[in-house]
Amino acid sequence: MNIAKMKGGKPLILISNDDGFEAKGIRELVRFLRPLGHLVVMAPDGPRSGMACSITSDRPVVYHQLAEEYGLSVYKCSGTPVDCVKLASSEVLHRQPDLIVGGINHGDNSAINVHYSGTMGVVIEGCLRGIPSVGFSLCNHAADADFSPLEEPVCRIVSCVLQGGLPEGVCLNVNFPLAASFKGIRICRQARGRWVNEWEKRQRPPHGGDYFWLTGNFVGDGAAEEGTDRWALREGYVAVTPISVDMTAHAALDRLKEQIQG
Amino acid sequence: MNIAKMKGGKPLILISNDDGFEAKGIRELVRFLRPLGHLVVMAPDGPRSGMACSITSDRPVVYHQLAEEYGLSVYKCSGTPVDCVKLASSEVLHRQPDLIVGGINHGDNSAINVHYSGTMGVVIEGCLRGIPSVGFSLCNHAADADFSPLEEPVCRIVSCVLQGGLPEGVCLNVNFPLAASFKGIRICRQARGRWVNEWEKRQRPPHGGDYFWLTGNFVGDGAAEEGTDRWALREGYVAVTPISVDMTAHAALDRLKEQIQG
Repeated sequence: MNIAKMKGGKPLILISNDDGFEAKGIRELVRFLRPLGHLVVMAPDGPRSGMACSITSDRPVVYHQLAEEYGLSVYKCSGTPVDCVKLASSEVLHRQPDLIVGGINHGDNSAINVHYSGTMGVVIEGCLRGIPSVGFSLCNHAADADFSPLEEPVCRIVSCVLQGGLPEGVCLNVNFPLAASFKGIRICRQARGRWVNEWEKRQRPPHGGDYFWLTGNFVGDGAAEEGTDRWALREGYVAVTPISVDMTAHAALDRLKEQIQG
Repeated sequence: MNIAKMKGGKPLILISNDDGFEAKGIRELVRFLRPLGHLVVMAPDGPRSGMACSITSDRPVVYHQLAEEYGLSVYKCSGTPVDCVKLASSEVLHRQPDLIVGGINHGDNSAINVHYSGTMGVVIEGCLRGIPSVGFSLCNHAADADFSPLEEPVCRIVSCVLQGGLPEGVCLNVNFPLAASFKGIRICRQARGRWVNEWEKRQRPPHGGDYFWLTGNFVGDGAAEEGTDRWALREGYVAVTPISVDMTAHAALDRLKEQIQG
């Protein structure tokens, strides 16, 4: 937040998520952030979990305003989480926002799950647009999860980012352990881990035909490796993983030049 | 490809895409790779462009076998590109494949478009599973694009990766310029760039109501910066960008520890 913006009033914060505008997580996030800025919410009109950075290219998208009061405008959108950011930026916001916040997600987005998360899609899209962007997730899928212990650390992290910005091309993936209080905040690296037993097979009545529900167990999650986000969560810390939108494997460039470029 | 696998026969190659099983790009890819391995195709049953790493969590997924001949099995799947990889791995393949290939995509997936690409979703999912994975894209959206100039470099890159593997956590995003021949292969870093004018607004007849089609122009694409994928494409090279599935912004860890961890 530069001085010009401070003089001009409160920071402008765009909020979206992947659980939809009615989810408790986004409603709690709005409640937490009301004192910190002018909020614009553009959220999907229903659940969009696991939609990653997907965009809608095969059909049109619509949005509708749901509420307008001093310091808060709320819209719902028929598209993906990334569509929400793109559409709000183009059609609703009168200027570039000072911050984009995704969440609070109902469920863990640590480790490799950053790749699947629609909440992190919001955040990556924000970062690609050059805007400081942060995603918040709670390791609890329940629709009525208790987000109240998150208020203080969410506001602290948001204030920090509003004041100090983020490095270019870097956004934050913040995950909260399922606890009534936290041991502190840890800046982490992304753990590995992998999903196993990913499909539950069922048969269609009356004459069969298999169909498959995505499910699974997350194993080898790196919780034993100090400094990973899974380790921090297991230890009771808030895990803050800085994410780079430059996905180049810089350390591999020389080897691959030799192997492939010839 | 280790010796044990070579002794056991041809390498096992899983192929998917985001344009769907009927697209010319995947049919040409299958034609190119037939001599190089036993191929299993599990591709979406229709177009899934821009679906990134999305997964289907709100409804079940089904698949059907379309063809089975010596060295080639073809399936279509109702899910996303990533679902295709997950479902093939769990239900169709008798062992872990030696290689996963995405494409050939009808359209450019260089620069930041790696984040939106369903073809690169296939590849990132493969890499997360510990399997060498490569995505191929041609800078031409036309359904009847001419893929024949790609045969030699596609086979060369696939053979290279089958023989030498890839570094752990690294996959390849390969983009071909629209040309009848290529100046060579260049190992690149991901260009930046951004999309502008992203929405085309239309009105619903007869009484209005706006709806929005995603479109846009890609600007500031880094084509002037030597070594980026956009530069390589502009110069007529095949652009090979190694992509890291560890998205941690390692260079930012220390600054953020000071700024946020306190």
